[in-house]
Amino acid sequence: MSWQAIGIFDSGVGGLTVLREIIRTLPQEDTIYFGDTARVPYGTKSPETVTRYAHEITSFLCRRDIKLLVVACNTVSAVALPGLKRQFSLPVVGVIEPGARRAVEVTRSGRVGVIGTAGTIRSSAYTRAIKRLKPDACVLTRACPLFVPLAEEGWTDNQVARLTAESYLRELKEAGIDTLVLGCTHYPLLKPLIADIMGPDVTLVDSAEETARTVAAILADKHLLRPAAEEGNHHYYVSDIPAGFIRVGNRFLGGRLGDVYQVDLDKDGEEC
Amino acid sequence: MSWQAIGIFDSGVGGLTVLREIIRTLPQEDTIYFGDTARVPYGTKSPETVTRYAHEITSFLCRRDIKLLVVACNTVSAVALPGLKRQFSLPVVGVIEPGARRAVEVTRSGRVGVIGTAGTIRSSAYTRAIKRLKPDACVLTRACPLFVPLAEEGWTDNQVARLTAESYLRELKEAGIDTLVLGCTHYPLLKPLIADIMGPDVTLVDSAEETARTVAAILADKHLLRPAAEEGNHHYYVSDIPAGFIRVGNRFLGGRLGDVYQVDLDKDGEEC
Repeated sequence: MSWQAIGIFDSGVGGLTVLREIIRTLPQEDTIYFGDTARVPYGTKSPETVTRYAHEITSFLCRRDIKLLVVACNTVSAVALPGLKRQFSLPVVGVIEPGARRAVEVTRSGRVGVIGTAGTIRSSAYTRAIKRLKPDACVLTRACPLFVPLAEEGWTDNQVARLTAESYLRELKEAGIDTLVLGCTHYPLLKPLIADIMGPDVTLVDSAEETARTVAAILADKHLLRPAAEEGNHHYYVSDIPAGFIRVGNRFLGGRLGDVYQVDLDKDGEEC
Repeated sequence: MSWQAIGIFDSGVGGLTVLREIIRTLPQEDTIYFGDTARVPYGTKSPETVTRYAHEITSFLCRRDIKLLVVACNTVSAVALPGLKRQFSLPVVGVIEPGARRAVEVTRSGRVGVIGTAGTIRSSAYTRAIKRLKPDACVLTRACPLFVPLAEEGWTDNQVARLTAESYLRELKEAGIDTLVLGCTHYPLLKPLIADIMGPDVTLVDSAEETARTVAAILADKHLLRPAAEEGNHHYYVSDIPAGFIRVGNRFLGGRLGDVYQVDLDKDGEEC
């Protein structure tokens, strides 16, 4: 039982920043990553469409016998998590709850900023999650649509990235937040730039790090951790040809991707 | 027969710049536009995936009894046009051939630049189309991945857009091209900025304008033009909820969108 893998998926390449933290925290665990590169991005799609995709992918990963599912996608975490937890009988971890919990832990003033894609911000999922834990928190949000293409272009510290970040972050900075949640899996690549603009008085919360901690805690609690002496294997599946995923993914993972396989979800067996 | 509509599709909202030119050129014609907003963007997807989507959408439009199909998407025009022409028995017009033809007409030096998404540039479709017409042309290309999100964000003349465009266009400018093809349907929104950076000695070729002229010529040749006294109706279909399409689309169309309907291609009848 404890030799099963951790399943993890995202609409594309962004979830690799979460996988990176999981591998760093739990190097002994096998992982199976699915990137829905044929249908990326999810942020501009309707909740109904995103929910349908999430169920298809979870079925795919379940057929590969996983012990825990990480939804490493803010859009899916925002709209589809309760449905996945109802339908599938394994622990499901999203990226929003861990990030919100950490933000509430570190804020002193209670003024918390959240940045993400237009879809994530429109869903108000972080605001709701933070308010659930700390009802008197003041949550300020800002959509940053250009951050994802900047990260994928590798423009993370040039003048274009800086001016874009200054424009997006100006209001949050002037509003005097002391904590800023990076509510998109692409944003860790822009972390040094965002930290520089926000200054030393603002703590950045990286959902990827918190999600990895949550995964470790759940597996330990359920006695599903693999012995730490082992070294995990990592498998990657995508829904479109792997070339683009491999090119950008190596930068996101901060290391060498293993073999990446293309799969057609429509032709991959039955529900689990 | 001549009362049938012109069918036009794109992966999303970008093709509306082509529709705008068609309406300007042929205001009497009915049009049916399909934007595949649930699966946008196509530029990062494999040729096989893009071809499959193009056939699904063409079938959908054929069931609505169109007399001519405009593929208002550079990615689809680059990879799927021959297949569509083989399988469907109506005139099919892409955006690459008209843009290439115009570039060859206007260049004096034979040094032609082409900008587009990574997928369009990687396909070399413009280079091949230009070289077919003018084998001694020197074609220089550059992918500009940030132009699409900049256009959709409405950042078409600020400092971020200017620095990005200067970075992307520098080599083309230094290479002394005299003609630049805007090889992506989003780029007409950035045309004033691009023209300013390239200077008065470089002629910009807008594929949308040339495509509209080609459509008019084919319909006239086949005696399928509607009498000019009429005023056309315009229908819009999208594959995801219409809110985002309407918001960005009004800017792209340069006017008021009519009603936009969401359709599920999987549940829309049979092949035509």
